[in-house]
Amino acid sequence: MTNARTEVAHFKLEITDRVATVRLDRPDRKNPLTFESYAELRDWFRDLHYADDVDVVIFASNGGNFSSGGDVHDIIGPLTRMNMKDLMRFTRMTGDLVKAIMHCGKPVIAAVDGICVGAGAIIAMASDMRIATPEAKTAFLFTRVGLAGCDMGACAILPRIIGQSRAAELLYTGRSMSAQEGENWGFYSRLVAAEGLTAQAQAMADRIKAGPNFAHMMTKTMLNQEWSMSIDQAIEAEAQAQAICMQTEDFKRAYDAFVAKEKPVFEGD
Amino acid sequence: MTNARTEVAHFKLEITDRVATVRLDRPDRKNPLTFESYAELRDWFRDLHYADDVDVVIFASNGGNFSSGGDVHDIIGPLTRMNMKDLMRFTRMTGDLVKAIMHCGKPVIAAVDGICVGAGAIIAMASDMRIATPEAKTAFLFTRVGLAGCDMGACAILPRIIGQSRAAELLYTGRSMSAQEGENWGFYSRLVAAEGLTAQAQAMADRIKAGPNFAHMMTKTMLNQEWSMSIDQAIEAEAQAQAICMQTEDFKRAYDAFVAKEKPVFEGD
Amino acid sequence: MTNARTEVAHFKLEITDRVATVRLDRPDRKNPLTFESYAELRDWFRDLHYADDVDVVIFASNGGNFSSGGDVHDIIGPLTRMNMKDLMRFTRMTGDLVKAIMHCGKPVIAAVDGICVGAGAIIAMASDMRIATPEAKTAFLFTRVGLAGCDMGACAILPRIIGQSRAAELLYTGRSMSAQEGENWGFYSRLVAAEGLTAQAQAMADRIKAGPNFAHMMTKTMLNQEWSMSIDQAIEAEAQAQAICMQTEDFKRAYDAFVAKEKPVFEGD
Repeated sequence: MTNARTEVAHFKLEITDRVATVRLDRPDRKNPLTFESYAELRDWFRDLHYADDVDVVIFASNGGNFSSGGDVHDIIGPLTRMNMKDLMRFTRMTGDLVKAIMHCGKPVIAAVDGICVGAGAIIAMASDMRIATPEAKTAFLFTRVGLAGCDMGACAILPRIIGQSRAAELLYTGRSMSAQEGENWGFYSRLVAAEGLTAQAQAMADRIKAGPNFAHMMTKTMLNQEWSMSIDQAIEAEAQAQAICMQTEDFKRAYDAFVAKEKPVFEGD
Repeated sequence: MTNARTEVAHFKLEITDRVATVRLDRPDRKNPLTFESYAELRDWFRDLHYADDVDVVIFASNGGNFSSGGDVHDIIGPLTRMNMKDLMRFTRMTGDLVKAIMHCGKPVIAAVDGICVGAGAIIAMASDMRIATPEAKTAFLFTRVGLAGCDMGACAILPRIIGQSRAAELLYTGRSMSAQEGENWGFYSRLVAAEGLTAQAQAMADRIKAGPNFAHMMTKTMLNQEWSMSIDQAIEAEAQAQAICMQTEDFKRAYDAFVAKEKPVFEGD
Repeated sequence: MTNARTEVAHFKLEITDRVATVRLDRPDRKNPLTFESYAELRDWFRDLHYADDVDVVIFASNGGNFSSGGDVHDIIGPLTRMNMKDLMRFTRMTGDLVKAIMHCGKPVIAAVDGICVGAGAIIAMASDMRIATPEAKTAFLFTRVGLAGCDMGACAILPRIIGQSRAAELLYTGRSMSAQEGENWGFYSRLVAAEGLTAQAQAMADRIKAGPNFAHMMTKTMLNQEWSMSIDQAIEAEAQAQAICMQTEDFKRAYDAFVAKEKPVFEGD
């Protein structure tokens, strides 16, 4: 039995009833990322893979904004003066945060209000599902700071969410995707008024948490694992993964509940 | 010259004018799948690959519903008591049905009314195109029976149809996708009132059947074959596949008809 | 310093202020492609990879139409009489045009009015972004000339833009996608009245051109390069690609402009 890390210094963390809520915590500056918060988030999500006390993660907004991305003064300034070795250390660290989110084994829900740009937009993209307020402004704005759209997996992942052409336009222009576009294009599952955002994210987390969490871990694993498989490989991979899930107690619990005309209570094993 | 199998015991089959219509046939129970119907459908679609008398398949609804998926009593009960060897035999059989549908060489149109859940939703997903009534309720509800969303290729195929994020939400929550969502998201090509469903499916089948059926087989092959190729590999693969089609009589028939200002009559060779 | 080729015989080319505008040039016949224009376009886009004087390409319409595709008399007739060696030479040439567009290193915007069918629709599809007029009729009509939908990469690329199911329907039926469908499905970024098409395409080109063009080249490269990578491979590939961009002067220019509270002026190095 391993628990998620609860001592964190560079972001805000609450764990209540098996739902972890993560927030960046500089609301006065719209929650930029720093070298320290990148590294700590990466480590926290990596450890989460082994945690038994968290079933779902909400990556929440703070003070009306999600995140303004990599801080211009704390991050971009230093990067303009680094050599290649140090640049690679940085770009791999940011990529490792995306990998850690995708491999953590727990569904991650991003709850996006206000500004969600740069690395902030990437964190939302790397989550499993996203909801947003009508005020959400989501921009993959790397091009506006002189960089390419290929940041932390965006050229691979964004096209699979909103389609190749819409992704290309956002990445080449750096323009904001409105909340409404985000919903129409399948980036956001739904829009909710700002005052309802936390409750809606919590309701989604509760619904998912009430399900079979070992099986959810397998769903998450396979959504990533099958990314570049052939169809036949994917079908064989799922035959194996689902056979594993058929040996869980949760599968029996669902069957027994059905026979007893009751609602199943899953326990995650 | 090989014909499609017409003797089937565990589902309903009609072949008329080169269009095969397949239906599950326990309408009183919303057409669940059983071990027997899974196996027979798999074998029928596999043999269909070699059949010369069928150009298009309609996978139709029956009694107001498409399919309720794997039968709880006939399938789920026994699965909860199987060892891994037998579980793998089952999950591979179900996966082999999807492979057989995708490799049968004939376009498959699902015509969905009412309940379309679990393995039923998978059959609709594995078809080439889908139409539905406004009453269609489509749910990848594996999570509700204690299992993972990775069933019969869903984590690979569903994201390519409706986008990664919408697919993730459906697979984690097991919730129903409404018919309107299905149309908006590109799962259903169009919605038609229940009384028009059969005619609409037949009209689509007739339109496709009137085309060059050897070339359709190649289109179906390549839609699957290029799934995980690089862009350059896919372009070379299509150069080869289309060159093959350029040596068919149907290509000449189309050209001759154009020159004669007539409508081409394709013969499938 | 290499410049784009400006001497072309089989299509129309203007290069103004680092934006190249390409048009097929037989407006009386809705701009069909010929063996000669295919080959010349392929060579022009291949050479463009090395050109330093062009940042963005507009593939424009001419006389109210984009392109009617491969000419029936000039191309289809001869193809019906070719042996396999010559057919492969043709299908590879057409595929090489798509490869050349995708590997040219410059964002390509298709501005589509009127008829956009067959190989014309493929050229629009192979561009990075597309805008259209409400009169645009886009059809992957290969099936109507007796061929398969797998032409010049369509079975791989079209599903990534509009989804697997919509692509399948268009490729099996050969039917026209209306301009409105094209916008709803993410094929067209936006629709504009015919009289505004040129200005809108130019505005998009100008906006992109004003960005960091070395980084744009990297965005384009990676959108293609990551097509069939695993997620982890894609993230590592982007860590390398973005680290390269972080050593450009344009990245420093953006930072310096930000500090000076000015708008950055990018120079493409």
